[in-house]
Amino acid sequence: MSAGSAIDLPTWRHRHLLDVDRLTWPELETLMAVADRFATATADPATKLDVLRGVNVTILFYEASTRTRVSFEIAAKKLGADVVSVTATGSSVTKGESLIDTVRTLEATGTRMLVMRHATSGAPYLVPAIFGGNVINGGDGWHAHPTQALLDLYTLREALPAPVGSEAGSKAGPGAEAAWSLRGRKVAIVGDLLHSRVARSNLWTLTAAGADVWACGPSTLLRGFEAWAATGAGGRHFTATSDVDAAIRDADAVMTLRIQKERMAGGLLPSLREYAATYGITRERLRGAKPDVLVMHPGPMNEGVEIAPDVAEGPGSLITSQVHNGIAIRMAVLALLDAAGPVA
Amino acid sequence: MSAGSAIDLPTWRHRHLLDVDRLTWPELETLMAVADRFATATADPATKLDVLRGVNVTILFYEASTRTRVSFEIAAKKLGADVVSVTATGSSVTKGESLIDTVRTLEATGTRMLVMRHATSGAPYLVPAIFGGNVINGGDGWHAHPTQALLDLYTLREALPAPVGSEAGSKAGPGAEAAWSLRGRKVAIVGDLLHSRVARSNLWTLTAAGADVWACGPSTLLRGFEAWAATGAGGRHFTATSDVDAAIRDADAVMTLRIQKERMAGGLLPSLREYAATYGITRERLRGAKPDVLVMHPGPMNEGVEIAPDVAEGPGSLITSQVHNGIAIRMAVLALLDAAGPVA
Amino acid sequence: MSAGSAIDLPTWRHRHLLDVDRLTWPELETLMAVADRFATATADPATKLDVLRGVNVTILFYEASTRTRVSFEIAAKKLGADVVSVTATGSSVTKGESLIDTVRTLEATGTRMLVMRHATSGAPYLVPAIFGGNVINGGDGWHAHPTQALLDLYTLREALPAPVGSEAGSKAGPGAEAAWSLRGRKVAIVGDLLHSRVARSNLWTLTAAGADVWACGPSTLLRGFEAWAATGAGGRHFTATSDVDAAIRDADAVMTLRIQKERMAGGLLPSLREYAATYGITRERLRGAKPDVLVMHPGPMNEGVEIAPDVAEGPGSLITSQVHNGIAIRMAVLALLDAAGPVA
Repeated sequence: MSAGSAIDLPTWRHRHLLDVDRLTWPELETLMAVADRFATATADPATKLDVLRGVNVTILFYEASTRTRVSFEIAAKKLGADVVSVTATGSSVTKGESLIDTVRTLEATGTRMLVMRHATSGAPYLVPAIFGGNVINGGDGWHAHPTQALLDLYTLREALPAPVGSEAGSKAGPGAEAAWSLRGRKVAIVGDLLHSRVARSNLWTLTAAGADVWACGPSTLLRGFEAWAATGAGGRHFTATSDVDAAIRDADAVMTLRIQKERMAGGLLPSLREYAATYGITRERLRGAKPDVLVMHPGPMNEGVEIAPDVAEGPGSLITSQVHNGIAIRMAVLALLDAAGPVA
Repeated sequence: MSAGSAIDLPTWRHRHLLDVDRLTWPELETLMAVADRFATATADPATKLDVLRGVNVTILFYEASTRTRVSFEIAAKKLGADVVSVTATGSSVTKGESLIDTVRTLEATGTRMLVMRHATSGAPYLVPAIFGGNVINGGDGWHAHPTQALLDLYTLREALPAPVGSEAGSKAGPGAEAAWSLRGRKVAIVGDLLHSRVARSNLWTLTAAGADVWACGPSTLLRGFEAWAATGAGGRHFTATSDVDAAIRDADAVMTLRIQKERMAGGLLPSLREYAATYGITRERLRGAKPDVLVMHPGPMNEGVEIAPDVAEGPGSLITSQVHNGIAIRMAVLALLDAAGPVA
Repeated sequence: MSAGSAIDLPTWRHRHLLDVDRLTWPELETLMAVADRFATATADPATKLDVLRGVNVTILFYEASTRTRVSFEIAAKKLGADVVSVTATGSSVTKGESLIDTVRTLEATGTRMLVMRHATSGAPYLVPAIFGGNVINGGDGWHAHPTQALLDLYTLREALPAPVGSEAGSKAGPGAEAAWSLRGRKVAIVGDLLHSRVARSNLWTLTAAGADVWACGPSTLLRGFEAWAATGAGGRHFTATSDVDAAIRDADAVMTLRIQKERMAGGLLPSLREYAATYGITRERLRGAKPDVLVMHPGPMNEGVEIAPDVAEGPGSLITSQVHNGIAIRMAVLALLDAAGPVA
């Protein structure tokens, strides 16, 4: 029943996962390889591992979430952890308890790994200074959503296993699978980049994988991205544009982002209808992309706004795979951080 | 500790439980017989079965609930399932995520059985088309609450084991217990039938069991029921009336329904006080029923409105048994649907 | 893995823990000794006991809470119980279901131990009459918070193990550890005593332990306490004063209480700033206390109001120990009440 002893984890030097920007490419490869092994080990849903046996994982979410919370909960339970879930509603958080005070309390009750989501960008960065365990950022404000970026990369690796230009088997020798990358691949990220922690984290991992990344949205929602592109993007392949057809042209993958209706109020967007007409990813618009273009969305979707229903459910859609792969990726993150130990 | 191997489940042809209207009488008998076996197998509360070992059951409730959610949670855990609970508050549902999107997400995280409650009548019927697992309706709008009707039937079977006219032991030969029915029994359902999913589901099962069912409430809250009675109720024994004394006269059981204060606003009810005076089930009013009349309520109760406290706690009250039996019935439902398999 | 058989529990005569006022000093000693054993038995976080195997513990909270709910949840799980959590939000409680109805429902679903928090003082006292299991008060209105008082006493016993005047080892013979008390110790409780269930419960246990207790706050927040002190406090060592320097002078421990901003509206407090200036526990103000004065807070804290951040995190702070010790104390409470049995 327990397969924990069969999982030998590689060395890992990070105690926390606050964002993906500090992960090197070899570390990203390691993480995905570990996720592969967990996916295999738990292919039978009845399997429970004991990798985190006796480890108290607390999921502390200050923002609404279904998929991320459930995904972490399942991942931690599959690893044999004891999981406690604390959400802002129904907790002392509504009494105005400070994040610091809450974290100290959770540590004193035995929490060793803390998965947290917070509306304030940067909030998880405050925690390691006062918490002896491991911190995993489950999304902070507009800033970062590292496990989303990791599962997106992992999903693209599964969907695009062969390097560009390779013919299956022709050039691959032993160990060639380690050479996976997105070099020569074009990935367009379309939508409200300004407010998107998903986009910010994905920029790091996708460009680290060698992809040619295009960020696309109304210019009001591209602030900062255009500037970064103009400075050369640290040598990465990165373009920011409001021209959706240019962004999608010959793309291997299109990542759509959620448009939040609340943004209308701020005058950043004209109307959902106009947004959908101009930037919504429809089958027609995708004709400019590669024939077998892949489509991604971090969810929850506004179908008919940023993505057409027939695209979301179409043959190139990876949306279900993204959610599914989130569990193996989060298992890998939890297991590696635990192996790195609570104290550096 | 595990008694799972001892439970051989009968064949079951339904993948979902959306309402009770598609269950034949033999199927209702089967379901209750399986519930009997689970009730016996878990008489020791420390017993855990492994019937649903490795099965991920998600309880997705878009409406407030204590008893139904807790009952499903306990039932699934007793069967050895992995249970995740998602409620509208604190989940992405507050971001306006669509039901369809949420269900797809849950399926991708590994959900194989989905118990759902939704304020919109018919919502669970949308799910099987996009979900590969089993769907159990935990209550949808005014429409249906199938497990409530099943546990009510099961509770009446326990309280009224002997057929009408039988003397205990006199006519019963081997296998006679299979002949249980409510033939010759009168059951009155009193209250706000119009808005009651409990009443709608109970109509099917009680009349399928052969009972003579009387629906009773102010005529504003009987719309549809009177029309159905007038057309002959498909050959079932069914009467709709606003005359509470006629409904209760010689009844074997009276099922009271919750009056929701919100209905006052719509002008459908005069006042709680007037409703209580006219339709509230008091000990006095019950004098017209059989001497040992049984009283039921699906909860939560407004004591002093639709039911008097001394009736709710009186000798004929089955209210506690209803809640208690809900666990065995829900275990039976979960186990049978799982045995029917996720794909037809 | 299971160490349950190693824990022999002493006889316990109480079926419920509604407040600490009915516990004798020997009972308090017993409870702390049992907590010691659970703390030792679960020093390895992977250890699970089976003391409450098959016991359904329901945590029913009608008020926001993080630490108390999580602490009870962890304590019950460490004892091997099946734990269900019901909070007011997302439950039928929002439909106006009565406490009595809810408790009856939970009992019928198999709940054997009920941990409850309620905004109404005295609410848990209504439950034993209609519930066959054990009731633990997790905080009721302004009235009582017995497990908080128990963990506070336990934390002081850990921090001040030697009786006053003893030199370590000099006078202690065999069994001397049983003679622990707070005789000769001064404990100041500073803050909003009027609204504090924590203070009310602590008064009993601290004075039962022999401490000289000083309650201190603005006179508007001392109502009742001054009167009790004036009548001689039932022979206990108790003083009520608005003079914070007198209260703190030579204190061995200072327990600070949360100031709730909501109280401002009622005119009971001038302003948070003025409160902080007059009664806030700062390092400067603590100079009047014993040099190694201990500082406690039940949380959640308003740092900078009732307690200065450097005091909360200072060398004498027991705040983290309080939270940590809450688990062993709650394990002891749950185990002892269960051993006392559901029926007297």
